[in-house]
Amino acid sequence: MKQTSAFAAKTARSPLESFLIERRPVGATDIQIEIDYCGVCHTDLHFVNNDWGMSEYPIVPGHEIVGRVSAIGAEVTKFKVGDSAAVGCMVKACGECESCKKGQEQYCLNGFTATYNSPTEDPGSFTYGGYSKSIVADESFVLSMPDNLDLKATAPLLCAGITTYSPMKHWNAGPGMKVGVVGLGGLGHMGVKFAHALGAHTVMITTSPEKGDNAQSLGADEVLLSTDSDAMAKEMGQFDFILNTIPVNHAIDPYLDLLKVDGTMCVVGAVEPLEKVNAAQLIFGRKTLVGSLIGGIKETQEMLDFCGEKEIVSDVEMIQINEINHAFERLVKSDVKYRFVIDMKSL
Amino acid sequence: MKQTSAFAAKTARSPLESFLIERRPVGATDIQIEIDYCGVCHTDLHFVNNDWGMSEYPIVPGHEIVGRVSAIGAEVTKFKVGDSAAVGCMVKACGECESCKKGQEQYCLNGFTATYNSPTEDPGSFTYGGYSKSIVADESFVLSMPDNLDLKATAPLLCAGITTYSPMKHWNAGPGMKVGVVGLGGLGHMGVKFAHALGAHTVMITTSPEKGDNAQSLGADEVLLSTDSDAMAKEMGQFDFILNTIPVNHAIDPYLDLLKVDGTMCVVGAVEPLEKVNAAQLIFGRKTLVGSLIGGIKETQEMLDFCGEKEIVSDVEMIQINEINHAFERLVKSDVKYRFVIDMKSL
Repeated sequence: MKQTSAFAAKTARSPLESFLIERRPVGATDIQIEIDYCGVCHTDLHFVNNDWGMSEYPIVPGHEIVGRVSAIGAEVTKFKVGDSAAVGCMVKACGECESCKKGQEQYCLNGFTATYNSPTEDPGSFTYGGYSKSIVADESFVLSMPDNLDLKATAPLLCAGITTYSPMKHWNAGPGMKVGVVGLGGLGHMGVKFAHALGAHTVMITTSPEKGDNAQSLGADEVLLSTDSDAMAKEMGQFDFILNTIPVNHAIDPYLDLLKVDGTMCVVGAVEPLEKVNAAQLIFGRKTLVGSLIGGIKETQEMLDFCGEKEIVSDVEMIQINEINHAFERLVKSDVKYRFVIDMKSL
Repeated sequence: MKQTSAFAAKTARSPLESFLIERRPVGATDIQIEIDYCGVCHTDLHFVNNDWGMSEYPIVPGHEIVGRVSAIGAEVTKFKVGDSAAVGCMVKACGECESCKKGQEQYCLNGFTATYNSPTEDPGSFTYGGYSKSIVADESFVLSMPDNLDLKATAPLLCAGITTYSPMKHWNAGPGMKVGVVGLGGLGHMGVKFAHALGAHTVMITTSPEKGDNAQSLGADEVLLSTDSDAMAKEMGQFDFILNTIPVNHAIDPYLDLLKVDGTMCVVGAVEPLEKVNAAQLIFGRKTLVGSLIGGIKETQEMLDFCGEKEIVSDVEMIQINEINHAFERLVKSDVKYRFVIDMKSL
């Protein structure tokens, strides 16, 4: 089915504009979702700009997708028409490798199919994302939304949420642990909410006193200003776990200093080479530097259910689709608290 | 007691020469060891040269010390005169911090006292190491040697041995695991022996076919030439654990590629900044980069007992004390299989 309503970038760094795309017909195990809201992830902008050299145009970005089921295939069992439903960063994986068998499709050894810009047999040959009227996906990659949450504020849970929840759970953030979150953006603000909700002593680590204040209103127990060398020295060796959400290369040695012996810093923001990781810091204290990528489908559902139970949503700024290019400009300047979400009814 | 027999460097990069040092008197819980053999660790040379800017001259290097008990204090219970005994990299720690309480004195939060070049109340104000006729140390930092091993070949176990054994144990190297060892020197050759003895499928990862052959005679099941791009590509994502013993900064991304999802690479050699650690490699596969420092006293004893049980010693080249400066020159060129050990009777 052709849509006239997607918003796509046709070439590198071109502004998004309305563009014809075609979705595949609804197959036996497929669900068609009429999209209500789509979050704006920094990754979307990286792909629009071809920052990682892997963009295939036209690109329809968007992998924080929530809406309502508008059609289902004959064999669908999990959903019925009218249900709220969501799609995150993945729409397919091999299902047979060691990672998939563990429910960790994000580490599929044969490579998962991303929600946009991945090769597919669908019309257009590459997947198209959620800046669109609708999407068709296999039910095994469609999530159920808790019915007690404000749907538009749940969209960022599908990427920013699971990206921060998964490492918090994997490294056992909880009571008795001191957990730091570095950086207060789309990821960081969810990291603070989850660390707090899981019962960890939660510390916002930031360069900005204002962001520190904001983080406390999100649930942080303490603020550590990384520009305050006395405060940083006092906190040396005090943290069990640090979630590092800084989206670009940066000096990580001040943060490694904060870790306890056997402490862990998990990088989820900077998908690029980090300069001068000091092995001496890792050796003297058996400290771990590790990364983490979104989360599996089962864990994403668990995260959404946890959000329903704890009434956790993202802090969002709603925009109309014709404001998206301006939103990208503001995103580059981190001028958003903390996630833009597009009201797709404006399309 | 004054000794005329230590070998010390008096200034940065000065050759070692005979020098007067004084040991403390044997206290109530002290043991005096007449030193038979002392291994030559690369760290010794770093301190002689003041490569790390922390050397206090005169330096008497040496922290792979084995010999026989020649005197004991009144309250000593673990040793009697004539027993074989050993001292490794540490001679004191606070005993009260969280790390010490776990038996991990190497991570003492108040800083352990190293066997040489550490501030001390002993004569000379800094500790003096094992390139000497004797040493006095508290019995809690003195190790018992298995009686079935060739004593001179056990000296390197006190540093090279425990440095590789501890991470192998901590990350559960054993049957069903594929373990790589990068670099075949003093550390690497012990890494291969331990990985093999613990039952892991052991792979030597090296640039040199000759070193590969040598590693197989030490117990490696396979050799992976890191210069062979086809072989490296074939082994992508295959390793559970990699022990990286390369002693200097190097490109680590080819080795990170070898790790499975959730795999770990532990750095024990390069005590310096590693350039361009690619966070993307850590993120896409939740891979761990970590360091590890020697081991605790209890674990060192466990390692020595394991060596006795499995008949593991180091491959050593014996030298006389007057050959030490030449040995340092050869060490810089990695021209030793795999550890120089000084016969201290030559002093």
